[in-house]
Amino acid sequence: MKALRFENQKLSVSEVARPDAFGEALVRVTLSGICNTDLEITRGYAGFAGTLGHEFVGVIENVPEARPRGPQTGSPAGVGRSGRATRDAEPSLTVGLLSPGQRVVGEINAGCGSCELCLSGDPRHCARRTVLGIVGRDGAHAEFLKLPVANLLRVPDEVSDERAVFTEPLSAACGILERAQITKRTSVAVIGDGKLGLLCAQVLATTGASVTLVGKHPPKLQIVQRRGIETLTIDKARTRTRTFDVVVEASGSSTGFDLALDLLHPRGTLVLKSTFHGATDLNAARIVVDEISVVGSRCGRFAPALELLKTNAVDVDSLISEEYTLAGALRAIERAGEPGVLKVLLRP
Amino acid sequence: MKALRFENQKLSVSEVARPDAFGEALVRVTLSGICNTDLEITRGYAGFAGTLGHEFVGVIENVPEARPRGPQTGSPAGVGRSGRATRDAEPSLTVGLLSPGQRVVGEINAGCGSCELCLSGDPRHCARRTVLGIVGRDGAHAEFLKLPVANLLRVPDEVSDERAVFTEPLSAACGILERAQITKRTSVAVIGDGKLGLLCAQVLATTGASVTLVGKHPPKLQIVQRRGIETLTIDKARTRTRTFDVVVEASGSSTGFDLALDLLHPRGTLVLKSTFHGATDLNAARIVVDEISVVGSRCGRFAPALELLKTNAVDVDSLISEEYTLAGALRAIERAGEPGVLKVLLRP
Repeated sequence: MKALRFENQKLSVSEVARPDAFGEALVRVTLSGICNTDLEITRGYAGFAGTLGHEFVGVIENVPEARPRGPQTGSPAGVGRSGRATRDAEPSLTVGLLSPGQRVVGEINAGCGSCELCLSGDPRHCARRTVLGIVGRDGAHAEFLKLPVANLLRVPDEVSDERAVFTEPLSAACGILERAQITKRTSVAVIGDGKLGLLCAQVLATTGASVTLVGKHPPKLQIVQRRGIETLTIDKARTRTRTFDVVVEASGSSTGFDLALDLLHPRGTLVLKSTFHGATDLNAARIVVDEISVVGSRCGRFAPALELLKTNAVDVDSLISEEYTLAGALRAIERAGEPGVLKVLLRP
Repeated sequence: MKALRFENQKLSVSEVARPDAFGEALVRVTLSGICNTDLEITRGYAGFAGTLGHEFVGVIENVPEARPRGPQTGSPAGVGRSGRATRDAEPSLTVGLLSPGQRVVGEINAGCGSCELCLSGDPRHCARRTVLGIVGRDGAHAEFLKLPVANLLRVPDEVSDERAVFTEPLSAACGILERAQITKRTSVAVIGDGKLGLLCAQVLATTGASVTLVGKHPPKLQIVQRRGIETLTIDKARTRTRTFDVVVEASGSSTGFDLALDLLHPRGTLVLKSTFHGATDLNAARIVVDEISVVGSRCGRFAPALELLKTNAVDVDSLISEEYTLAGALRAIERAGEPGVLKVLLRP
């Protein structure tokens, strides 16, 4: 099968063997999405080598017949259909719910299945986890991928493939709500009008909080303006210092980090969403003096994201810039890194 | 009067006029303590010029007769005797409780008295605040200082001057409890066996939490060992990665920051206590991937600190290294910056 590989610091579209999915589900990928993390990996982030990609929608090709056993043959513990921690998760039941031909998306962290975190139902921080297309596990920019059955969720009929492929980044935006208290009374600024920022702003607005997106690009800002979200240019934002309860840094730049500190009132919360390669200059004294909480946020649960897609609560269609075949993935990756381009999709 | 001044990037012991305390209390300083922040100020931190020093115990020389009025004539709102937010604080009553000859310590933030924060009873983050010996207000390394009456707290008879002078740094250690949830079930590491680290470890241990102090200097570590606190060398600490719920960074070094991230389990809390001049290299990706909360902590309330001193719950006596007269303050500052030296006191 074809796959977009990153090996020896080089990207290529290569012919590789189909994944040996023994004990896991084999999924035929319908669409995959290029994330900034893919680009960061090609710059050295996470030290990953293998097939890139962690955003996908696909169709189950095969599920294991027997109950998965042990860490090497799947990761039974954990991610229940509800998206909640499921200490008593019944893997055999989970297997029973999925069958070939069903459309699915998949949570990207596969835990060891036996550590305390996995046993508590949340493998997202398992120290021995693999992560689809990021840590020790071939990813989704390929014709097929494998994942533990417990990671897969059926896609509701109302949600098209083009929307379902946003489940992973949308769940990452939903993950903010696990890390910061956001209610109707919270004033939130999101910095960055890239894909992640646009999703974060929309997800946070569903809570009823007052949300402001700070960005540079009018066509991108218009996407959330149409959903009633206030937008500000960076210059305008600078007139609103010390006024926000929560600021989400989704630009991945150190200027975004500084602006975030400016916008927060004392004891405010800065949510860091961007993963990128390398260190960032942090003025630790400012965090101490203003008693800021800097909170990292990575992956969220898929169930709330699918719900948002099902109810059309978030506009993801406007985020699709271009679609390429998997054969054209090198050009697609190049395009995804160009200014002004939002989501680039790959169709195997 | 004599005062230790930092002006035009130079330290000197100079003769200056007594503070004009109109509307505030005039305090004759009995003892003051040299803090690392004093040293950082001489390296450029906070851009301060004036009389250094913010840790003191003294005797009231004079209190204003009338109720203080407005921002320029004292800061009536706020810091009640209980150390709690006191929206209905009655400044005239507060004045009534204090009279010349009484021993006092003083909270160091003096708010504008009219902003939302000050009116809510907590001037510690007032944007227009002055801070004793740090921001826009002459400090405590002098024969006299002035502070709003509302900032002063009487020292219980049981607490000697030599112990009372630790109220400010001890309250800073208590401030951690306002910023991180610490209970009997919390495992906490404190990094740094300097003055601040020794106080933080002891304060946190009073909660019943399991506390481990990580440091380099056996004589310093012994101070908290005597209070039943576990200590670890840095090498030993490295064998305990991903095991602590909360890590307090009190070493002020970027290696301490990295070690703190190593010691925390995913979704753990890193409390930053040290204020120092300049930026620190922060690996933001690690904060995101492990979903760490980095929480700044600066000043605490004085009342709980006085209570700890009164009940002898914390050993501060062992932290006193040397005492100098104010005339010898330059040498004292020099000594305070030398390795192995803990608290250096100045007696006017």
